[in-house]
Amino acid sequence: MPDPAPAYPIFDADSLRAWIGGLSPVRASLGSTPGDWRIREVGDGNLNLVFIVEGPQGSVCVKQALPYVRAAGPSWPMAPRRAFFENAYYKAVAPHVGARIPRIHHYDDALYCTVMERLSPHIILRQGLIEGRRYPDAARDVGEYVAHAGFFTSDFARPFEEKLAGVALFAGNKDLIRISVDLIFTDPFRESVRNRHTSPQLDAVVRDLRRDGPLKVAAADCGRRFLTDAQALLHGDLHSGSVMVTERDTRVIDPEFACYGPIGFDLGAYVANLLLSWYSQPGHATPADDRSAQQRWILTEIETFWEAFRARFLALWAAHGRGDALPAAMFEGGEADAAALQAARVAFVESLFADMIGFGACKMIRRIVGFAHVADFERIADADIRARCEARALAFARLLLTHPRQFRAIGDVLDAVPRA
Amino acid sequence: MPDPAPAYPIFDADSLRAWIGGLSPVRASLGSTPGDWRIREVGDGNLNLVFIVEGPQGSVCVKQALPYVRAAGPSWPMAPRRAFFENAYYKAVAPHVGARIPRIHHYDDALYCTVMERLSPHIILRQGLIEGRRYPDAARDVGEYVAHAGFFTSDFARPFEEKLAGVALFAGNKDLIRISVDLIFTDPFRESVRNRHTSPQLDAVVRDLRRDGPLKVAAADCGRRFLTDAQALLHGDLHSGSVMVTERDTRVIDPEFACYGPIGFDLGAYVANLLLSWYSQPGHATPADDRSAQQRWILTEIETFWEAFRARFLALWAAHGRGDALPAAMFEGGEADAAALQAARVAFVESLFADMIGFGACKMIRRIVGFAHVADFERIADADIRARCEARALAFARLLLTHPRQFRAIGDVLDAVPRA
Repeated sequence: MPDPAPAYPIFDADSLRAWIGGLSPVRASLGSTPGDWRIREVGDGNLNLVFIVEGPQGSVCVKQALPYVRAAGPSWPMAPRRAFFENAYYKAVAPHVGARIPRIHHYDDALYCTVMERLSPHIILRQGLIEGRRYPDAARDVGEYVAHAGFFTSDFARPFEEKLAGVALFAGNKDLIRISVDLIFTDPFRESVRNRHTSPQLDAVVRDLRRDGPLKVAAADCGRRFLTDAQALLHGDLHSGSVMVTERDTRVIDPEFACYGPIGFDLGAYVANLLLSWYSQPGHATPADDRSAQQRWILTEIETFWEAFRARFLALWAAHGRGDALPAAMFEGGEADAAALQAARVAFVESLFADMIGFGACKMIRRIVGFAHVADFERIADADIRARCEARALAFARLLLTHPRQFRAIGDVLDAVPRA
Repeated sequence: MPDPAPAYPIFDADSLRAWIGGLSPVRASLGSTPGDWRIREVGDGNLNLVFIVEGPQGSVCVKQALPYVRAAGPSWPMAPRRAFFENAYYKAVAPHVGARIPRIHHYDDALYCTVMERLSPHIILRQGLIEGRRYPDAARDVGEYVAHAGFFTSDFARPFEEKLAGVALFAGNKDLIRISVDLIFTDPFRESVRNRHTSPQLDAVVRDLRRDGPLKVAAADCGRRFLTDAQALLHGDLHSGSVMVTERDTRVIDPEFACYGPIGFDLGAYVANLLLSWYSQPGHATPADDRSAQQRWILTEIETFWEAFRARFLALWAAHGRGDALPAAMFEGGEADAAALQAARVAFVESLFADMIGFGACKMIRRIVGFAHVADFERIADADIRARCEARALAFARLLLTHPRQFRAIGDVLDAVPRA
């Protein structure tokens, strides 16, 4: 693991061309000579440079960490070693998630730079959802992805010593964890210069939210759990902008927020962003499409996501439950033992459902009243329409956080989302 | 932190005399010359050599980690770097617990050896309890100790980055954590060659216990929490053999099992050992003393311990709650905010009570049917009497684990302990 970086060269198209030219296998896969390659910077995230390099025979994607938060500029410095943890996450989950992550061609620890598979014709799932497109496998694929990555990095699958080594490693990703702690669990619930919201339309709603003691306690308790409950290695930022899709393929990218934490944090990120999409749909309605069909499909996606996760997690546990937590060796006394163990596993997965609801609600709120917003709402040009969508999403998130007992099964969530 | 040790010299009285003679400040504090010192090996624990070195002007205690489990012999190897973690624990809590830990004069990382304050005329609390002696401050002191050590190493007191650094460091103490995982949460609940119990008297009870699915699920879930819930730096073995007392002083020793985990683990260790002492008292009755007064005093100690912990933890939180978990900065909106925050803090402390009950019950069980037993029972020579005491303690521990909702306050525990 590198020390917090001193100066290092930040790529532009020319310097990247020269550098890739020196990576023989990558150069060979692109074909011809570097001068023939087409290089574009396409990054639209908050933190990094992203280049597409195209040659006559192939193309790659290059991601380089900047030493500051791109969305804020050099005034908000950010150690680029997050690239190291992104790479470490990919390595840790690769044996368990198959082709759901991009293939990594090269990682350079001094340049904080990763050369990886270019996903094409994939687009960012969030973009597709905004455009009203549907991806029949996405929710199932991501649900199963979280099950695989979560289960196999947990104490249910392996000796605790292996998890502790991972916990110690990813404890170093503290700069990114700091962002999550501040921007998800703290700032949205108080006045902060980093916050913004659709104003003046939401001023009263936001003021009220920041005065809601029980809501803040519920959110803060999620934050406490995020810091203490090291169940498994998390992606850490699993929203619909971290998923790339075609109609037949689903890939998970951008795990630089990786850390050990509660599995419900990843589950909640995905569900939250489906719910944000649901609430944003009226803002994207046209005379030809009121988006009600898209909304109905999104609700089925939420159910599919949870059920796919749940079924796969329990199936993996049944087949590979050789870890130190709830050890199978304690339950080898016949049918009664087997039933007790299975009941305990089901109860644990139900606890993940509750966590998903709580973390998901926090993530919905932070995207509406915090620092980093989502294109689902930002692309609604009419501020009054946008504010109406956002206010309804906020109200739902508050309900999830303050009345958790109303939401014991995924059907409870679907029933409570106000129908258009 | 040293690598798992290769060979290193194991002290005897002569080699220790020579080594201490080279530590100028220690030599000076002992007085005269090494040849005049009296050196005795007094270790009676499971893991280490312990020497008392007495000179004409003073004395010190020397603890050296052996490369195997002393209680099992060289056939059970154990990396001596646990001495490093014991020292790291002392350093971490020293600023917060005052004189409740011994003063450390010298630590040698190559010899896995600590020279520390000799506590005199202190005796091991367990020994005093067996002898029917009472220590008016012990429970209060240890309760407040756990409050200080737990609070100040938690995310409630400090930026999470500091806790993560500690988590990464103590993740290395995996050999000792392995002992806890196996000997507290797993082996006692299944057949294992490392187990033993008073036989044949307890055979049927133990067989029944190992067939009790709900009991095993409850214990296994405590084990899962021990592995995942990194609330604070734990002592890790806070039984009555890790506390040295006089009638006016209380000291905590032997933190080599230190790791990050749930605070209730330490709380449960102390309460469990008070309960074991309570259940063992009839076995130490004499015609002159039926030990019923000692039992009544032990029950008040249990209450005092919890109430001292609870009051001090909340007081520290009110005065020093500057950490990232339940951050005070989210609750600066006046009285309603303050009330919501305080309610959340109280709720968290109540969750520690529930944890104390669960972890305590696991620790009671492991001391009766597992590998390492307690002198409270072992010193009862009559196996029938011992078995009766043990069976009643086991039954109570099972009740605690399988009916947690009956135990919501410390009074519920005291009421449920069968009166003699």
